[in-house]
Amino acid sequence: MRQAGRYLPEYRAVRAKHSFLEMVRSPELVAEVTIQPVDLVDVDAAIIFSDILVVPEAMGMVLEVEEGKGGPRFPEPIRLYSQIKKLSDANPAKSLSYVMDAIRLTKEKLSGRVPLIGFTGAPWTLFAYMVDGHGSKDFRHAKEMLFTRREEAHLMLRKLTDVIAQYLIAQIQAGADIVQIFDTWAGILTPEDFKEFSLDYIAEIVRLVKTETGNSTPIIVFCKGANHSLLEQAATGCDVIGLDWTVDIAEAKAIIGDEVALQGNLDPTVLYTSELIIEERVNAIADSMVVPKGHIFNLGHGITPEVDPENARAFVRAAKNAYTRKKD
Amino acid sequence: MRQAGRYLPEYRAVRAKHSFLEMVRSPELVAEVTIQPVDLVDVDAAIIFSDILVVPEAMGMVLEVEEGKGGPRFPEPIRLYSQIKKLSDANPAKSLSYVMDAIRLTKEKLSGRVPLIGFTGAPWTLFAYMVDGHGSKDFRHAKEMLFTRREEAHLMLRKLTDVIAQYLIAQIQAGADIVQIFDTWAGILTPEDFKEFSLDYIAEIVRLVKTETGNSTPIIVFCKGANHSLLEQAATGCDVIGLDWTVDIAEAKAIIGDEVALQGNLDPTVLYTSELIIEERVNAIADSMVVPKGHIFNLGHGITPEVDPENARAFVRAAKNAYTRKKD
Repeated sequence: MRQAGRYLPEYRAVRAKHSFLEMVRSPELVAEVTIQPVDLVDVDAAIIFSDILVVPEAMGMVLEVEEGKGGPRFPEPIRLYSQIKKLSDANPAKSLSYVMDAIRLTKEKLSGRVPLIGFTGAPWTLFAYMVDGHGSKDFRHAKEMLFTRREEAHLMLRKLTDVIAQYLIAQIQAGADIVQIFDTWAGILTPEDFKEFSLDYIAEIVRLVKTETGNSTPIIVFCKGANHSLLEQAATGCDVIGLDWTVDIAEAKAIIGDEVALQGNLDPTVLYTSELIIEERVNAIADSMVVPKGHIFNLGHGITPEVDPENARAFVRAAKNAYTRKKD
Repeated sequence: MRQAGRYLPEYRAVRAKHSFLEMVRSPELVAEVTIQPVDLVDVDAAIIFSDILVVPEAMGMVLEVEEGKGGPRFPEPIRLYSQIKKLSDANPAKSLSYVMDAIRLTKEKLSGRVPLIGFTGAPWTLFAYMVDGHGSKDFRHAKEMLFTRREEAHLMLRKLTDVIAQYLIAQIQAGADIVQIFDTWAGILTPEDFKEFSLDYIAEIVRLVKTETGNSTPIIVFCKGANHSLLEQAATGCDVIGLDWTVDIAEAKAIIGDEVALQGNLDPTVLYTSELIIEERVNAIADSMVVPKGHIFNLGHGITPEVDPENARAFVRAAKNAYTRKKD
């Protein structure tokens, strides 16, 4: 999950001097804020600071992130077949070379302290933003395209799949130790639509990346809200499944088995409470896992801007203690 | 689900002349817009036009619905124990008598054409709005109260439970043929928190209403996003479980069995497509139900303002045809 961010005063100090996109495009600034949570929160891994929407931008879309005007947006969303055809499928190793530079520089600065996680948005989630143009409750335009212009939707999802696979391969070649595929909007689809329009493409990305990199690097698949399809997610060939907090992790483990590890799944709002309650909740998750292995302790979604960094530290400390205790 | 609404030009014509709260408080206007979908969309039942937030208002909170300023809000959200204690638990039969008047008048005007559905928000969903003060992505203040001031949270949920049960009993006594409990925000809780802070109270409401009314009236429970707990929902003693569109209705049926009926669960965005696609999707749901009984065909959530009324009619027609065909 996102680790660098507005909850850290040290991040806000950097952000005050640069626009969001300036930061994302500067390997030096990316390395700086990526390493902040390692120093300040004591996490066991760093996740590269970036944004999932740099991929559509690299494919030719104009991306706007206006300060204080809600989230990022595409002023010219994809609605026509001619726009889909025009989307570039050039290898992001070049068009997103600033991400690979940032990964290389961050790895250098980390000098082996902790592993570095790369990431991408999943095809369906990027498709949803590209067609609606911005965040939305129901992504009605994206869904309308899935339902009424299925062939065109598949064409665009296929293009995204190829670009995303190349993007992850380039991240791995630049030094990412593990990569994560985020399907933030998986949960607004019916189980059947999720399989057709999202999961099949994620499975294809896993296959392409594993083949090209000789299965060198673990892949985390996180399909928020798609707990109806945990077994199908495990069948993609990924190494880790990310869980949001709306599923009992012991039940998820029982469904998925031991071959695929789990990541998650503390309710992020628990970080608004206190060290005591954070510990209770962390211990409950740790205790419900039969064996303390095959589990990346994490939040069930990204950390939110108003969280007190002291509580983020308490979470990391509690997670480490819980599993140290279990090992004893 | 909501049936009257902005997608109908006939509703907008009434709405142009009155504020939202004026409409909700006027039995004549409520009857008029409640019956509109019966006449215009040919639905098999009417659902009383109202808002779930009239209950907190009746308990003493100031409710503001400013035109064009997002959703309704409580300018003085509940954050302190002293505020919880001050919440009135007076019987809504009196404080919300305008709803009961509206039910009586609507029943009279319907004169038996179709049954009338009453409804309420569930305790947790009302609690979330009352504590955060307005709609929110994560309802962080509400959750903070659950986690850090559990006793106070339970006190407030208990108070809401009693008021809501009385409210449904009053609606049934005024003539509602069936009542629905909406837990719109069930899906943001962990399965365990959902049981403790939401479902146990819903079960208590079902028990109180069934006891007081001699089990005269079916109760629908709709916990959006809580598909992890379908069996537990069925165990509340309700007669119908509402399903959102993120669960396969055949799988839900297999879990729940035949004792409790199902309601749902077409993805509401399908109404943005065309008659042909609406028919395909409706038939897929109808075909996946083993027997055409114990199913209230419906959307998986409320109809959205931009839907073409012609498509709403196509949905109702397709649902009726699908089950007429199956009976043959």
